[in-house]
Amino acid sequence: MSLYRYHVFFCTNRREDGGPCCSQAGSDEAREYVKRRCKDLGIHGHGQIRINSAGCMDRCDQGPVLVVYPEGVWYTYVDNEDLDEIIASHLQGGEVVERLRLPAGDE
Amino acid sequence: MSLYRYHVFFCTNRREDGGPCCSQAGSDEAREYVKRRCKDLGIHGHGQIRINSAGCMDRCDQGPVLVVYPEGVWYTYVDNEDLDEIIASHLQGGEVVERLRLPAGDE
Repeated sequence: MSLYRYHVFFCTNRREDGGPCCSQAGSDEAREYVKRRCKDLGIHGHGQIRINSAGCMDRCDQGPVLVVYPEGVWYTYVDNEDLDEIIASHLQGGEVVERLRLPAGDE
Repeated sequence: MSLYRYHVFFCTNRREDGGPCCSQAGSDEAREYVKRRCKDLGIHGHGQIRINSAGCMDRCDQGPVLVVYPEGVWYTYVDNEDLDEIIASHLQGGEVVERLRLPAGDE
């Protein structure tokens, strides 16, 4: 196993050209919410889960996005309810949330 | 396969308390260098490699650090020669650079 069982990256990029970006959709607050929830649940840290911010991951049109590694599962989300489902189902239960999942590739 | 064959995250965090951090060690410049090299080599983009910045990944004492997913291989680096070796060996050749690799866990 790598340092983290699940390493989650939220795109929190803010585009300078004013184009659509994850940050406009509240990705900073979303990332803070998930990090706080994981800490409260005692599942944040080495050997468990790490919630990170990241720069643009080049899926702006499908944002806001996050990706869960090592699986490489991509999600979009609208509200904290979506984020709670990703935490409970995927990060705690190991089950991908299909309704929020983005295609793996460009299909 | 996920959207990227290799998704690389450079910690580019700057600690507000002045403690040791990857940014002090030139991680912004390192990330720019690797991104530029991958673009020049024609290996940057969907289906290939993505070079991202990320917030603190909690390995400050071992920094500067980067991590390559989906493998979850962690590296440290000193100069562009190290970065060139990671590009050529790991990102182009699929071979981990053992001399720059960090332990997977806290051992």
